[in-house]
Amino acid sequence: MVLGAAEAAVLAFDVGGTDIKAGLVDAAGQVLGMRRVPTPLDAARPAEAILDRLAELAGELAAEFPDIPARAAGVIVPGIVDSIAGIGIYSANLGWRNFPFTAEAEKRFGVPVAFNHDVRSAAAVEHQFGGSKDFDDVVVMVVGTGIAAAVFSGGEAVTAGGFAGELGHALVPDPDAGQGSNGATILEAVGSAGAIAKRYSAKSGTAVDGARDVLARATSGDELAARIWADAVDALAFTICQCVNIIGTEAVVIGGGLAEAGDDLLEPLRARVNGILDFQRRPLIMQAQLGQDAGLLGAALNARRLLSPAQPTPAQPNSAQPKPLNTATAGSRGGAR
Amino acid sequence: MVLGAAEAAVLAFDVGGTDIKAGLVDAAGQVLGMRRVPTPLDAARPAEAILDRLAELAGELAAEFPDIPARAAGVIVPGIVDSIAGIGIYSANLGWRNFPFTAEAEKRFGVPVAFNHDVRSAAAVEHQFGGSKDFDDVVVMVVGTGIAAAVFSGGEAVTAGGFAGELGHALVPDPDAGQGSNGATILEAVGSAGAIAKRYSAKSGTAVDGARDVLARATSGDELAARIWADAVDALAFTICQCVNIIGTEAVVIGGGLAEAGDDLLEPLRARVNGILDFQRRPLIMQAQLGQDAGLLGAALNARRLLSPAQPTPAQPNSAQPKPLNTATAGSRGGAR
Repeated sequence: MVLGAAEAAVLAFDVGGTDIKAGLVDAAGQVLGMRRVPTPLDAARPAEAILDRLAELAGELAAEFPDIPARAAGVIVPGIVDSIAGIGIYSANLGWRNFPFTAEAEKRFGVPVAFNHDVRSAAAVEHQFGGSKDFDDVVVMVVGTGIAAAVFSGGEAVTAGGFAGELGHALVPDPDAGQGSNGATILEAVGSAGAIAKRYSAKSGTAVDGARDVLARATSGDELAARIWADAVDALAFTICQCVNIIGTEAVVIGGGLAEAGDDLLEPLRARVNGILDFQRRPLIMQAQLGQDAGLLGAALNARRLLSPAQPTPAQPNSAQPKPLNTATAGSRGGAR
Repeated sequence: MVLGAAEAAVLAFDVGGTDIKAGLVDAAGQVLGMRRVPTPLDAARPAEAILDRLAELAGELAAEFPDIPARAAGVIVPGIVDSIAGIGIYSANLGWRNFPFTAEAEKRFGVPVAFNHDVRSAAAVEHQFGGSKDFDDVVVMVVGTGIAAAVFSGGEAVTAGGFAGELGHALVPDPDAGQGSNGATILEAVGSAGAIAKRYSAKSGTAVDGARDVLARATSGDELAARIWADAVDALAFTICQCVNIIGTEAVVIGGGLAEAGDDLLEPLRARVNGILDFQRRPLIMQAQLGQDAGLLGAALNARRLLSPAQPTPAQPNSAQPKPLNTATAGSRGGAR
């Protein structure tokens, strides 16, 4: 797929809980005019307010690059997303339910829109270019304030109408459960960077500067910090083992802020997973090469697929993707998603 | 696909831990000369001893039906199976590791052999004809002495080289863990029919006649029996919720001996799953229509696919299967697999 610059340029929007990232991605995969603005929060019309802001950004980019018209747009959002129907089914943080993103975005932008899930789109970039690219059965986990994931089985993205990959809500044993209660909680409440900081602060009565601070304290001999770090590792290992048992996952890619801990996270995690599994195939556990811009590149790839008639399912990331974007901007390790 | 009787007849073998079932399946899907014999156990050459026995059975069937020559054979076994490579990777109960079943069976039978996993093959029949046939994201669990499962995603069987569907080894909270230990165990050790009987016997000091007996005691007011039944329901619900969160499972089919409990199992299980899930799509939980012969029919379907050049992946059960076998013999509810 070789397109002239004008034909191939697309708008890319990565809508997060805090910020929107926007840019014009040209035929060579270069992100032009990238900007980051606060996500507008409007409880009465949450999705419309965001799309209105995206339309303003599209106008700014059109004014800035008058010679590079965008022929399509990619919009990615968190939550539960039905990319085929073009519906944002649910976002806990941003507040919409069953909003027709594709149709409403196309009205505003005047070009075809590929609407999809943020983490699945970023993960498709990771899965296409990163360390897991030679594997068919892969889970990409983005572990930051919360935990989101994309699941690949047999080389294809598992979407299940948008309901797959909710690993942040997978059940894990609750380390704070009362004695003998066998209580369960969700992975996000123990294994996320957000949970590590929050649990340490709550138990120590000391404010900390994120999971990184808790790790530094653990390394200097703080037993509470070490226990909370180990709880997070246990919870992540527990969920990885569920993936192995249910869908035979052979590679797990960990991105997001917590992955910046590198071997302080990955080494104990591998040891824990290997200690739990028995006859099963041991998954490789690796750090993502996802940069902060992987979402934006994923959104652009989704949009570009709309321009390629050879792709029958334009809005679904999968392993059989067209000619890669230039991933130079996605090469930094440990993005802060 | 309409084949003459002679072309379409296939041998079908369902190798279990205790028994082998064998039959000749004709073009109309009728099982002829079905027989059940003990599985030979030979620690030194476990797979060869079984294949030798299958070859004897094939000879018996050929002598019994001289006018209906088998043109292919289907062999299904438990454990970890790589159906594409034709390798039995591992069976804990039967003792082989990395045995080339397809090649060794073809030597003995003189016809092409489709080698596959027992539960995935039976589940493909269930998924093609049973209550879950209209769903794409399905888990079929066979809950008996142990627990095995087949996973379908986007309408396709998830195999992962044979490593998917090990739900019996999925982690669950251990109801017998010490206070505050947050111990985990595997689903099979709490949620199987075998575990229900074993845990009751161990705790009560009373021998029981299987999970059915424990259920009867629970119904008559035995608190220990009720607790052990509830533990099993909790463990099954926990694992079903993991499937929902990881791969967006929309229908769960439960077969095997424990499913014979019907609503005594399904009603509390549905309530427990619905109590755990939050924003996620609630899965339908239904009883299998799998009969005891579903495995044999699955083996025959696998073999018939070898005779159909239109099927590119002959050894993989999936939802795009050729013309159905007659499933009259698979229609009884609650098989004792």
